[in-house]
Amino acid sequence: MTITKKYIDELKKLDLKNMYNNDFFLTWEKSEDELKGVFTIAEALRDLRKNNVSTKVFDSGLGISLFRDNSTRTRFSFASACNLLGLEVQDLDEGKSQIAHGETVRETANMISFMADVIGIRDDMYIGKGNTYMREVSRAVQDGNRDGVLEQRPTLVNLQCDIDHPTQAMADALHLINEFGGIENLKGKKVAMTWAHSPSYGKPLSVPQGIIGLLTRFGMDVVLAHPEGYEVMEEVEEVAKRNAKASGGSFTKTNSMEEAFKDADIVYPKSWAPFVAMEKRTKLYAEGDDEGIKALEKELLEANAKHKDWECTEELMKLTKDGKALYMHCLPADITGVSCKEGEVEASVFDRYRDELYKEASFKPYVVAAMIFLSKMENPEEVLEKLEKRNTERVFNEK
Amino acid sequence: MTITKKYIDELKKLDLKNMYNNDFFLTWEKSEDELKGVFTIAEALRDLRKNNVSTKVFDSGLGISLFRDNSTRTRFSFASACNLLGLEVQDLDEGKSQIAHGETVRETANMISFMADVIGIRDDMYIGKGNTYMREVSRAVQDGNRDGVLEQRPTLVNLQCDIDHPTQAMADALHLINEFGGIENLKGKKVAMTWAHSPSYGKPLSVPQGIIGLLTRFGMDVVLAHPEGYEVMEEVEEVAKRNAKASGGSFTKTNSMEEAFKDADIVYPKSWAPFVAMEKRTKLYAEGDDEGIKALEKELLEANAKHKDWECTEELMKLTKDGKALYMHCLPADITGVSCKEGEVEASVFDRYRDELYKEASFKPYVVAAMIFLSKMENPEEVLEKLEKRNTERVFNEK
Amino acid sequence: MTITKKYIDELKKLDLKNMYNNDFFLTWEKSEDELKGVFTIAEALRDLRKNNVSTKVFDSGLGISLFRDNSTRTRFSFASACNLLGLEVQDLDEGKSQIAHGETVRETANMISFMADVIGIRDDMYIGKGNTYMREVSRAVQDGNRDGVLEQRPTLVNLQCDIDHPTQAMADALHLINEFGGIENLKGKKVAMTWAHSPSYGKPLSVPQGIIGLLTRFGMDVVLAHPEGYEVMEEVEEVAKRNAKASGGSFTKTNSMEEAFKDADIVYPKSWAPFVAMEKRTKLYAEGDDEGIKALEKELLEANAKHKDWECTEELMKLTKDGKALYMHCLPADITGVSCKEGEVEASVFDRYRDELYKEASFKPYVVAAMIFLSKMENPEEVLEKLEKRNTERVFNEK
Repeated sequence: MTITKKYIDELKKLDLKNMYNNDFFLTWEKSEDELKGVFTIAEALRDLRKNNVSTKVFDSGLGISLFRDNSTRTRFSFASACNLLGLEVQDLDEGKSQIAHGETVRETANMISFMADVIGIRDDMYIGKGNTYMREVSRAVQDGNRDGVLEQRPTLVNLQCDIDHPTQAMADALHLINEFGGIENLKGKKVAMTWAHSPSYGKPLSVPQGIIGLLTRFGMDVVLAHPEGYEVMEEVEEVAKRNAKASGGSFTKTNSMEEAFKDADIVYPKSWAPFVAMEKRTKLYAEGDDEGIKALEKELLEANAKHKDWECTEELMKLTKDGKALYMHCLPADITGVSCKEGEVEASVFDRYRDELYKEASFKPYVVAAMIFLSKMENPEEVLEKLEKRNTERVFNEK
Repeated sequence: MTITKKYIDELKKLDLKNMYNNDFFLTWEKSEDELKGVFTIAEALRDLRKNNVSTKVFDSGLGISLFRDNSTRTRFSFASACNLLGLEVQDLDEGKSQIAHGETVRETANMISFMADVIGIRDDMYIGKGNTYMREVSRAVQDGNRDGVLEQRPTLVNLQCDIDHPTQAMADALHLINEFGGIENLKGKKVAMTWAHSPSYGKPLSVPQGIIGLLTRFGMDVVLAHPEGYEVMEEVEEVAKRNAKASGGSFTKTNSMEEAFKDADIVYPKSWAPFVAMEKRTKLYAEGDDEGIKALEKELLEANAKHKDWECTEELMKLTKDGKALYMHCLPADITGVSCKEGEVEASVFDRYRDELYKEASFKPYVVAAMIFLSKMENPEEVLEKLEKRNTERVFNEK
Repeated sequence: MTITKKYIDELKKLDLKNMYNNDFFLTWEKSEDELKGVFTIAEALRDLRKNNVSTKVFDSGLGISLFRDNSTRTRFSFASACNLLGLEVQDLDEGKSQIAHGETVRETANMISFMADVIGIRDDMYIGKGNTYMREVSRAVQDGNRDGVLEQRPTLVNLQCDIDHPTQAMADALHLINEFGGIENLKGKKVAMTWAHSPSYGKPLSVPQGIIGLLTRFGMDVVLAHPEGYEVMEEVEEVAKRNAKASGGSFTKTNSMEEAFKDADIVYPKSWAPFVAMEKRTKLYAEGDDEGIKALEKELLEANAKHKDWECTEELMKLTKDGKALYMHCLPADITGVSCKEGEVEASVFDRYRDELYKEASFKPYVVAAMIFLSKMENPEEVLEKLEKRNTERVFNEK
């Protein structure tokens, strides 16, 4: 009991009953205990792995993934998490399937789930669609399980939807917890979630929304900054306000990047598309209006181009707390002069924080694994204890 | 010995010697004992899994899949079955391989099989091709094994060919066994395998052929119904006749859906393309005659459209035994008003049988696993006994 | 200690320290001990597997593959090797990833590697690019590991680059060792690595380069033969010369296939593109010069067509030692009258050597596994010993 004791002690204080056999859709549907549970399990799994202790809790079983948008990081995070726990990933490639011809979501969900323990979905392209689709899948497999079709209930992990990107936001938060030495140290810290210029179009809103929806839970002073017209979903702003009130932090908005950066402990400058434009785009796609889509794209790129000054420069970084705010990004970033001509961040800023950025990303596989673990293990403390006692080596004969 | 005893007792009565190190191409090449063996192992594997007992019989090894047609259900069934037994699926994506430039089947088969324990192939598009191809692959790896190239003989599972769809038919039969309370209760039951209207073109014949080729083994009264011109392969009809004679059942044909439904215990209404048309299409493709293919497609769709009354309606269902025949389908079905305007089945009929349909599908992964198991385990009873004794948990710490 | 003893005794004589936590890029960067280490481990793993002893040394962990060119053999070899050792393959499909938009190699390499133990890359299309790219990936993950981003250092296996094809050449050499009864018996044997005619264009140089770069290590008389203008990379010829001098063998060149075949113990006739043409092509692709590429292709095919007499015929085979030289090929071969009209080899020659050719290929999965094993196991002898003692069955209940 040297590795897991502290995590078990922490878990004993938390009420995690509701996570068992449950999905992870939006962070604001989870209690503070539950968020802490995910952080704790993520750290415990990482610590066990570092100590060459296997955390395989499945001897067989599938983790189904469905990516309706390109993905590298999240795809590998999900694959890594499943592998760490003993599940084999089976990707549902809609192009190679028979789904096209009118099959219902309910049917597909059941057909792929006979031996599935978990389903991970990324569906972030269309407003009002992604999260809705995930809930439909979840309901379908719950019904399937209740009606004797499925022998187990596959739980769902939201790998990014139109509303939230919980595995990203939770990984980001865990990074902050590590950087600032504890969740309690986040209280009172100022974080600037700001828009930044990109020469590309239509980046999802789920990252800024995920960040303001989560970091307001920890008593932080969260500032959302963007040019006029780049509003995010109103309902998520409401969530952020309620969270801030409850946690003793604050949630404010500004149209000035400078104001947001002023004395910030953390900055998160990142491009996104205006919510209204995304809504419009969703409609145009539904109508198959190709001309309309092209026109909208042109319009949005022109709008972006008016805000090239929304770049995270060395100049701006100087405004932050001691000039040393922690720079964050979900990656890949549009780096000026590297990946594009005029982007979200100056190359020298990005370079200085490269290690931190990569570390930020490194938490995602463990966060995904923790979400799966808590949805599948009825007694998480007991399992951690037994895993350490079982003491199977991850790598054979490694000290 | 609480879970496996009954299955072991059953297996002891069966002669399964020929299944070891052998392929599964067509159900009518298998003895009655062998079919029962598959059903028994499928149920045993399912029961062990339900009781959280791992059925991993491979510590490493590959299951190769090759899908020459789109697939969801069968793809996930094969992946689930392999995973359940401990094999990792490696998909042979012919688009990403070097096979294109004139490599022989013999060569490819050996090149992918150095660590393959099983190969699953779906090749159902062209008459006279799919099954032939599978046998060529099987011969190639048998030669490879005999000649010291391959250290093990990968056995082959037919995941649907131009003649039979044995994993579907066997799953369907196992569903019936469960619904009617035993294989002996199928005797004398009337099953209507009928054509049904679909607005799409060229659906494979392997399902109706598989059904009449298998269900005639169990003393059932099998009726094949379709409009004139929608004949299936003659050789399979001959098989059905011989089977019926041997099993004390019957095999009859009619051009009336009503007649087929009359007093039926089970109905299986499903679209397929006429055998002669499929043969013609195969030739046109071989000749690269695009115009000819388009013309044939048009012709077939027009022919289909003349039989829109071949729909499984509530009206028709009333003709069946007590108006309560079991409705079956391999899925996805063309549901009128749901997945198409005028399809194979009325929405209310489909809805009423949804749970049964999903359960029907749920047997496929276990049937595939049982086929693999019996081709790889020399002493199946002994293995079941030892698996239960080994008692490895599928999910760690689950009661 | 019946299976592994001889391998362990052999390993004890070798200095393999430098292989631990190291990459495998080019055979000529490895010491003779290290090459022998790979051969020995490959044979040991094969022998254990034959005896149904599991060689899983990873309980979890990913093997990342990246194929920038089509592949069947190497793809399945890598997948088989990873599976044999307990790693799960996760393919980085650049088409489905977000890499396109300007992400750096450094970033991608780290993002996919959080739980990766090994990375296998095939990148053989462009001169000066493939090997360079691999080294960039390796440096990136080494930095990531050093800087605390990655908890382990993923080691890299070159699955074919523009310079060498080490898994092929090592498998070929292991085949020779088996055919000639020991590495010491290769001394003084004449091997003809010769160009051969193909109606296709732009085949990589890495096979002939890999062969002359490796077989010159064992005191063999290596002859490189090709028509004028089909030179390989000069730097690899220099390697071959140095090797030959050091090993007491020879490296000579000729423009006559007959001369090369004369008294040869082994012949390896295979098409490749001229180095200068490949260099030119690389430039044209970089410039996006489609017209230039087409012109070059035409020019090269015309050049090839002038050398249709460079075919491995029965006539030519008679010139070899006792008319019985061992015929080798990396496969797939262009077989005259089978896969093309006029190709690299006469059908009857190919047919006579089919079993040997397939056996040659059968070593590749074990060679890849051995490379991974030695880069990951600090004490290879100890691990072999413990694997045999652990005695986990690969196939359950198999004698």
